[in-house]
Amino acid sequence: MNIKLATGESIPAADGENILSALKKKGIYLVSSCGGKGTCGKCRIKIRSGKYRTSASRPGRDKEKGIVLACQTFPESDVSAELLEEARLIVGDRIALAKSKDLPELLRSFDSEITPIVKRLNIKLPPPTIEDHISDLERLKRGLEMKGVKGMRFSHTFISSMAEDLRKHNWEIHLAYVDGPEAIFVTSDKQTARYGIAVDIGTTTIVVYLIDLADGKLVDVGSTYNSQIRYGDDVITRIVHAAEGGGLEELRKTVTGDINNITDTIIEKHGINKEHIECAVISGNTTMSHIFWGLAPEHIREEPYIPTVNSFPLWRAGTARLHINQQAPVYTLPCVASYVGGDIVSGALASKMHRNPEIALFMDIGTNGEIAIGNNEWLMTAACSAGPCFEGSGIKHGMRATEGAIEAVKIAPDTFEPSISVIGNTAAIGICGSGMIDAISELFLSGVIDRKGKFVREIKTGRIREGDEGAEFVIYKGAKDIVLTEVDIENIMRAKAAIYAGISSLIKEIGFTLDNIERIYIAGGFGNYLNVDRAVIIGMLPDIPKEKFRFLGNTSVVGAYLCLLSEKLRKEAEEIARKMTYMELSVSKNFMDEYMSALFLPHTDMGLFPTVEKLLK
Amino acid sequence: MNIKLATGESIPAADGENILSALKKKGIYLVSSCGGKGTCGKCRIKIRSGKYRTSASRPGRDKEKGIVLACQTFPESDVSAELLEEARLIVGDRIALAKSKDLPELLRSFDSEITPIVKRLNIKLPPPTIEDHISDLERLKRGLEMKGVKGMRFSHTFISSMAEDLRKHNWEIHLAYVDGPEAIFVTSDKQTARYGIAVDIGTTTIVVYLIDLADGKLVDVGSTYNSQIRYGDDVITRIVHAAEGGGLEELRKTVTGDINNITDTIIEKHGINKEHIECAVISGNTTMSHIFWGLAPEHIREEPYIPTVNSFPLWRAGTARLHINQQAPVYTLPCVASYVGGDIVSGALASKMHRNPEIALFMDIGTNGEIAIGNNEWLMTAACSAGPCFEGSGIKHGMRATEGAIEAVKIAPDTFEPSISVIGNTAAIGICGSGMIDAISELFLSGVIDRKGKFVREIKTGRIREGDEGAEFVIYKGAKDIVLTEVDIENIMRAKAAIYAGISSLIKEIGFTLDNIERIYIAGGFGNYLNVDRAVIIGMLPDIPKEKFRFLGNTSVVGAYLCLLSEKLRKEAEEIARKMTYMELSVSKNFMDEYMSALFLPHTDMGLFPTVEKLLK
Repeated sequence: MNIKLATGESIPAADGENILSALKKKGIYLVSSCGGKGTCGKCRIKIRSGKYRTSASRPGRDKEKGIVLACQTFPESDVSAELLEEARLIVGDRIALAKSKDLPELLRSFDSEITPIVKRLNIKLPPPTIEDHISDLERLKRGLEMKGVKGMRFSHTFISSMAEDLRKHNWEIHLAYVDGPEAIFVTSDKQTARYGIAVDIGTTTIVVYLIDLADGKLVDVGSTYNSQIRYGDDVITRIVHAAEGGGLEELRKTVTGDINNITDTIIEKHGINKEHIECAVISGNTTMSHIFWGLAPEHIREEPYIPTVNSFPLWRAGTARLHINQQAPVYTLPCVASYVGGDIVSGALASKMHRNPEIALFMDIGTNGEIAIGNNEWLMTAACSAGPCFEGSGIKHGMRATEGAIEAVKIAPDTFEPSISVIGNTAAIGICGSGMIDAISELFLSGVIDRKGKFVREIKTGRIREGDEGAEFVIYKGAKDIVLTEVDIENIMRAKAAIYAGISSLIKEIGFTLDNIERIYIAGGFGNYLNVDRAVIIGMLPDIPKEKFRFLGNTSVVGAYLCLLSEKLRKEAEEIARKMTYMELSVSKNFMDEYMSALFLPHTDMGLFPTVEKLLK
Repeated sequence: MNIKLATGESIPAADGENILSALKKKGIYLVSSCGGKGTCGKCRIKIRSGKYRTSASRPGRDKEKGIVLACQTFPESDVSAELLEEARLIVGDRIALAKSKDLPELLRSFDSEITPIVKRLNIKLPPPTIEDHISDLERLKRGLEMKGVKGMRFSHTFISSMAEDLRKHNWEIHLAYVDGPEAIFVTSDKQTARYGIAVDIGTTTIVVYLIDLADGKLVDVGSTYNSQIRYGDDVITRIVHAAEGGGLEELRKTVTGDINNITDTIIEKHGINKEHIECAVISGNTTMSHIFWGLAPEHIREEPYIPTVNSFPLWRAGTARLHINQQAPVYTLPCVASYVGGDIVSGALASKMHRNPEIALFMDIGTNGEIAIGNNEWLMTAACSAGPCFEGSGIKHGMRATEGAIEAVKIAPDTFEPSISVIGNTAAIGICGSGMIDAISELFLSGVIDRKGKFVREIKTGRIREGDEGAEFVIYKGAKDIVLTEVDIENIMRAKAAIYAGISSLIKEIGFTLDNIERIYIAGGFGNYLNVDRAVIIGMLPDIPKEKFRFLGNTSVVGAYLCLLSEKLRKEAEEIARKMTYMELSVSKNFMDEYMSALFLPHTDMGLFPTVEKLLK
C-alpha cells in the first residue's frame, strides 16, 4: 500500500504499519511528543481518500475534515494524504544543511577559536591504597590542585555517580566543567564525541542546530512550528495564557516538547548518544526565554514592563528538561528589555554591527519585528509587532520556507497568469514569506490589486474567484490550489506597515534620516532569499540604494551557534545586551502615524518611494 | 474507653478514635511516616487484652503476638497495650530538654557569636518605573552591589519565585544567602522566626534538636530508633543491603523518613512553619552520612576502604529530601575515614580536646565505638565495633535511656534482691545502657555471675530462672518482668571488651601508656549519666583515677548544634577532620589480643584493675 502525498511523493506502508512510522522511514517526520502512543495528539494528518482504519481522531472539526492521528492510523488501501503544516517536523532541511560549511567559516571570520561552554581537563589519578586512603572527592580535588585548579564546586548529581565513574575509567578521566569552576561530568579520556545544540525559540517557529563541537560543523538541523501557537499567535496571548491556572506549565511543556521532539529525531537519525550532547544555547525573545525556563512572564506585559531576568544564569539541561546530557549547561542569550530579547542580541552579534564603525540598521522580521541601530560604540533598539504572517501563520496557505513552498512569483502583465518557483522543485503545497512579498508586489505592479491591497474587480481573469473566505487569487493550480485571499493581503499589509513604521519611527526618534544608515541587515526565516526590490515595492523596506541591504536569514539561530562555540562571542553577546538602549515605540504617536501612513502600497507618501513611482509609470 | 500502658499511664480514647491519635493527644508519639494511612506499617503496638477492631495487622509473627498498627486500630473497650521500643518516637524528652539553657552556655564557653549558616542582608530596592526598567534580577544585583556584595549566584528555584517575592514584600526584603555567595530565599524584612535542626544519625538511634537561631535555645528534641535497623544492626549489614537492587534507596528513604517524622511531629506540636527551618546540620558516621545523601557506601567496606566523600558540599534540604525549607543549606559534619565519621569530629569538637594542650582520649560508645586521642596539636583516631547493645538493641529488654528505662541497679549482697531507679519514676518497661552496666557490675560483685559472665548455679535465689531464651535474672517484677539473660550478658561482655581493647590497643599503637592520658571523655546515649566506677568494675573503661573521666552524653548532636550556630566552630570541625590521622585497628593483631583478654570480668589480667581487685576482696 502507498501513502500519496500532495507533493507528489508516494510512500510505501507495510501491512499493519501506521502512517507515522511509514513516513518516518522516508525521512518525513511529524511532530509527536508521546512516541507514537496516541496520547499527545500532535501527529495530525488529513486523509483525503482511500481506505484506512484509525483508533483516534479527535471529535469535532478534526473528524469532519478527515484529520486523524498518523500514529494510530493504518492504511487498508492506497491513501491520498495531506500533511498539515503545523504538524510537520522538518529534519535535514537542504537549505539549512547547505550552511554546514558556511558556519565554521563564519566563526573563523570572527577570529575566534572553538571554545565551547563545557571545558575538559585530562586528569590521571593514582588509585587508592591502604596507605593513600583519602576519599574519592578529596582525591579528585588533589588531582585538580596539581593542575592548578582550585575551588571547584561539585553538585549532588555529579558526586552521586562520581565513585563509579572514576573506577569505570580506571582513574584516568576527562573532567568536564564550566567556569565557576563547577564540575559537570566525568568521561573516559578516550571519548571524543562532543555535540551541542543551538536553539532558536521563535514565537512561531523553533529551529534546532545539532553541532559537532570538534569542528563546529552542522550535523543536522530540525524545525517545527512552535506548538504554543494553539494558545495564541503572539507573545501577548501567550503571556495571558501563562497567567491562567497551569498555563505557564502548559506552555513550558509545549516548547520543551518541541525542542526535544526535534533533538530526539535528529539523534535517532544519526545514531548519536544523547549523553554526548553536552551543551545548549537558547536564543529567543524575552517572553519565550522566560517560558522556556518556567518563569512567569506576566510582568513583561504590565506597565512598567519588567522581565524577571535579562541575563540568565547558566542552569542545567536537567532543570530545563531537555533530552540531552542532564548536566549540560544551557546558555541563554541575554535579553535587553521586555520586547527586545536574546534573539536580537544574537542577530546583532551575527551581523557584526557591534564591531564596525559604520552606522547599521538590523531588522529581524519574525512574529515580532525588532530593530537595532548603531555601531561599535552605541546601539538603540525598539520593537513593533509585525505578526506571524511571513512565517506562514495566519495566511490561508501560508507555510515556512521549506520544501513545497512557493518562494517566488511572477505575474504576466497581460494575461495575469502567474509563474512560480517552489523550494525543492516539488508540487507546491503552500506559500512562504518571500513568495507572499513577491506575489503582492506583482499583483500590485500588474494592477490586480490597488494601493489599498484590494482586488481591482474590473480586471478580467479567471485567477480571481470567490473562496470560502471571500475573494482570492489563485497562484497555483494543482491537486490542492494555492491562493492568496484578500484577507491574507490585508494581514500582509499590516505586517509590512508595522515593519516600515518601526524602521522609520526609530530613525526619527534618534534624530537620524535614512541617509545616515550605511547598511541595513534583514533577518528572518525567509529561506533562500528575500528579494529586497520586491520588499521595497510593497513598502516594507525603505527605498534606499539596494547595495546597502544584506539579507542574513535566521540570525537568531546563527548567533546561538556562535555562542555555542566561542567564549569570546558569548562575552560579546553580553556586551551587546548591556550596550543596547531600548526605546518604547508602542506608546509613541510617531509610530502610530508612521504605521497608518504605511498601510498603502507602497506608502501614502509616494515621494518616499521614487523607485516604485518610476516603475508604476 | 482507656488505653492502659505498661508504664501505668491510662490514655482516654474517644469512640471511633484510633490508638495513634489518642496517644498523640497525650504527647505519646509513635513512628509513622504515612500520616496514619496504614501504609508505612511503622506505628506497631502490642495489645495484651481488651476488645478492639483493627483493619491492619501484618500476617505472621505480628498477628500471633497481638501486634497491630495503632493508626488502624480502634478500642471497643478498655485495652491494655504495650509500646514497642522500635516504634516509639520520643518528643519533649525531659533529660534533653533540661539542656535548653546549657546549650547556649556551652556555645558561649567556646567564645563564639551566633553565626548561622544562612546569612541575611536587608535590602531596600527602588520599585521599577518606565524609566528604570531593568529586570528584577538586575535590580536585585544592583542593590547587592550597593551593599558591596558581588558575584552572588542564583539558582533556578530562587529565581522561579523571586519576581513574586520582591513584589509581595514591596521591594523591602531580607535576602537569605550562604557563603559562595549564593542566594537562598527572600523574606519580608519583618520576619524574625528562624530555626534550624541539628541531627545525629546514629546507626541505632536518631536524635533531632530543633533550635531557635535567634538565641540558640533548644525548642524541642525528638528521637527514634533508626528504622534502618530492620535491614541489619550494624553498618556492615547496611552497606551490604545498600548494594542490593534498590537497597540504597530503601535505606535512604528510611533515614530521611525518620528525621522527617520527628521534625514534623515537633513543628506540629509547636505550631512552627516548616519554611522557617532554614538550615540543618547532620552528624553521622561515614556510612550513615553517605546513605543520608544517597551515595553508595559500598567502597567503604572493600579494601582499601574508601569513602566517596569525607568533606561534603553544602547541598540543599530539597536534595536531602528533608521536610524543611527546601532551599535550606544542609551542613554535613566532615568525616575522617571509612570508619571514623562526622559524629566523631562532632564529638571531638564538643569535648574541646582540639583546643587544649593536655592529652585527652575521647571515646564515643555507640553501635560503633570510635576513639580519638590527642590535643591541640595532633589527633589520632580508630574504630572498633561495639555493637548496639548499650543503645538497647539486641538485648531482650533493652531500650534507650528514656522514660521507663531502668538506669541504675543495686543488688543486695545477701538476698540478691535488686533495687532499681527508673527514668521518669514510672513503672519500668526496659533497661538502658547505664542500667546494664550497673546490673552486670552488681551481679558480678555479689557473685551471681562469674568472671566469664555466666550465672553461678550454686547461688540460691528465685531471681534466676529459665526463660524462653535460656537462663535469666529478673531485675524487675511487674506487669511485664524485666530480665537480663545470659545471652544479653554475653553481648554486653563482647561490647565492653571491644571498647576496652580499642582504648588500650590505640594507646599501645602510638607508644603511650594510660599514664600519658590526662583526660578521658566518654560520649554516648546513656541518658542522665554513666557510672564510671561501674564501667571500670566490668572492665569496659580502664582503671585510672576517676577524676580523669568526664561523661559528655550525646556529643554527636551537641557538636551538630555548635556547627548549626557558629561559623568559627564549623571551621574548627573542618580543621579537626583534616588533622585526624586514622589508624586501622581491625587488622592489627594487637587489637585481637586485647579483645580476647578483655572478655572476662573485669579482664584476664586482674593486675590491670587494682581497684576492682580490692573491691572483690
